[in-house]
Amino acid sequence: MTRTILDTAGLPEADADARAAARTREAVLTKPAGALGRLEEVAAHLSAWQGRHPPRLERVEIHVFVGRHGVTAQGVSAFPASVTDQMVRNFRSGGAAVNQLARSCGARLSVHDPFPHWTTRDWTVAEAMEPAEMATALAAGARTVRDGVDLIAIGEMGIGNTATAAALCAALFGGAGLEWCGPGTGLDAEGVQRKAAVIDRGLARHAGRLEEPAEILRVLGGYELAAMAGCILEARRRRVPVILDGFVAGAAAAVLFCQERSALDHCLAGHVSAEHAHRALLARLGLQPLLDLDMRLGEASGAALAIGIVQAALACHSGMASFADAGVDGRL
Amino acid sequence: MTRTILDTAGLPEADADARAAARTREAVLTKPAGALGRLEEVAAHLSAWQGRHPPRLERVEIHVFVGRHGVTAQGVSAFPASVTDQMVRNFRSGGAAVNQLARSCGARLSVHDPFPHWTTRDWTVAEAMEPAEMATALAAGARTVRDGVDLIAIGEMGIGNTATAAALCAALFGGAGLEWCGPGTGLDAEGVQRKAAVIDRGLARHAGRLEEPAEILRVLGGYELAAMAGCILEARRRRVPVILDGFVAGAAAAVLFCQERSALDHCLAGHVSAEHAHRALLARLGLQPLLDLDMRLGEASGAALAIGIVQAALACHSGMASFADAGVDGRL
Repeated sequence: MTRTILDTAGLPEADADARAAARTREAVLTKPAGALGRLEEVAAHLSAWQGRHPPRLERVEIHVFVGRHGVTAQGVSAFPASVTDQMVRNFRSGGAAVNQLARSCGARLSVHDPFPHWTTRDWTVAEAMEPAEMATALAAGARTVRDGVDLIAIGEMGIGNTATAAALCAALFGGAGLEWCGPGTGLDAEGVQRKAAVIDRGLARHAGRLEEPAEILRVLGGYELAAMAGCILEARRRRVPVILDGFVAGAAAAVLFCQERSALDHCLAGHVSAEHAHRALLARLGLQPLLDLDMRLGEASGAALAIGIVQAALACHSGMASFADAGVDGRL
Repeated sequence: MTRTILDTAGLPEADADARAAARTREAVLTKPAGALGRLEEVAAHLSAWQGRHPPRLERVEIHVFVGRHGVTAQGVSAFPASVTDQMVRNFRSGGAAVNQLARSCGARLSVHDPFPHWTTRDWTVAEAMEPAEMATALAAGARTVRDGVDLIAIGEMGIGNTATAAALCAALFGGAGLEWCGPGTGLDAEGVQRKAAVIDRGLARHAGRLEEPAEILRVLGGYELAAMAGCILEARRRRVPVILDGFVAGAAAAVLFCQERSALDHCLAGHVSAEHAHRALLARLGLQPLLDLDMRLGEASGAALAIGIVQAALACHSGMASFADAGVDGRL
């Protein structure tokens, strides 16, 4: 069974004591209660999921997973499939947006493309991955999570993957292609209609196999989506909080969510992207994005930008004086 | 006339060539057109208002202006007026939130409290400032803008100043106290009603003098609000882009906006705060906030956090490779 490949049983829970310690400290810092808003939640989230107080952000890593999609043959992207390889070279030479964003926040960027000659099958005519291929992809994602890492931001590169992500969302949550697909890298309205029809064909092609989340990922997914799912799961097992990037990362996370409702509790949504269905997807996942800046680039760019917010949250939580230490009066 | 004190005549315009240069560069960077969303706008904004391309962020400064409000005698805050002085000491010893946020983004923090024994008059019974006092406050704000600074984030500290800001907004835009006031540092519902009634008394007290924005600032304002207005204006004259903090900074900016609709064109709204009327105020000012994190602390905390977003925008704009340099194919 595919389900055993994507094993969400026995995931660790949040550390209630560490979360309580964060809240106790928050209450004595020199500000009105709750005045740092979501920064306070983020500090508590780090504590709860790292399982320690104070939490730590010494080693922050950004992982970009690469995938190649046979469905690009159906004309679902504004850019040619060759751009995937070209962008991998651009990441490696430091020229992409995420390189600049990683440097801005001091995070370590890794680009994972262990199978550069592997293209998942066009899911309008075949199953995207064999069970063994999906297992390989999940394991490749899981392997990126190393002990001693304090926070991981994940994202992807893969021309065609917003179509794949939309197909996954439609299969996981219901709805036709048009409900879940958008312009991606920049399709016009006609292109979006064509992309939606491709998704509908994919859904029809695999109609009998769309019951189980892991199976949906296998037949409609992609390498980088499976790798992201593997990474999110392994991070949970090792108590590393995760920041999700945009719509494609969210679709990978949704597979886990549909298998186990609490599987994303250690995740933060870095941002809500401008890609059509991302806001609806986050609402389904119960995740509130940290940023809303009309970005729609993928490659972990929104998650990388959110690292700065998480760092600022911890800086306030750890560095602020208490009312008592600073000699500041409390409420009337 | 107060108007001559708050002189919005002859303000420099955006540099159209520098803005065009930013847009030209943005179009060749290795990403789908527009995929960095508001980060692209921010890079163009920096260029347009610094009047150069590429723009620069070597010297970024945060200014926190302090004010003391006689209207605190009317019970408009959840905290005692003594907290203003205590928080100034906390800023100076590095224990406040904004100290941590300034360090996080590498900005220089200055706290301006040149008249620590000056409390503006309770505007429910008197005019808050004499003309000479307001001129002093405006000049104190203007003096903080130094040549060679690339970006300024502004905010404030002053127990009672959300009441003052709400009174200003009501006088500038219409509406009763309740439309513009919120819990501030943490009033309960009854406290908010009481605060709204105080604002209504202030509006009634000065009903004859609420025609001209500068006069509204003088009779209903506060030292730190006037100083912020002076700082914003002087920054415009010297072509320094400004990031506004929350509701109180927005109310100070609104005085300028109501006098001259283009007076805030060099400003970015750092965030929308959780304080009740801030979202409505930003809509009036035509400003779209960069962040929306339920913060409501003041002390430039939201603006300081937004500095990181602006830095990231410039890092992408300046550091990314072009399609040609990276050998990445363009659109199909």
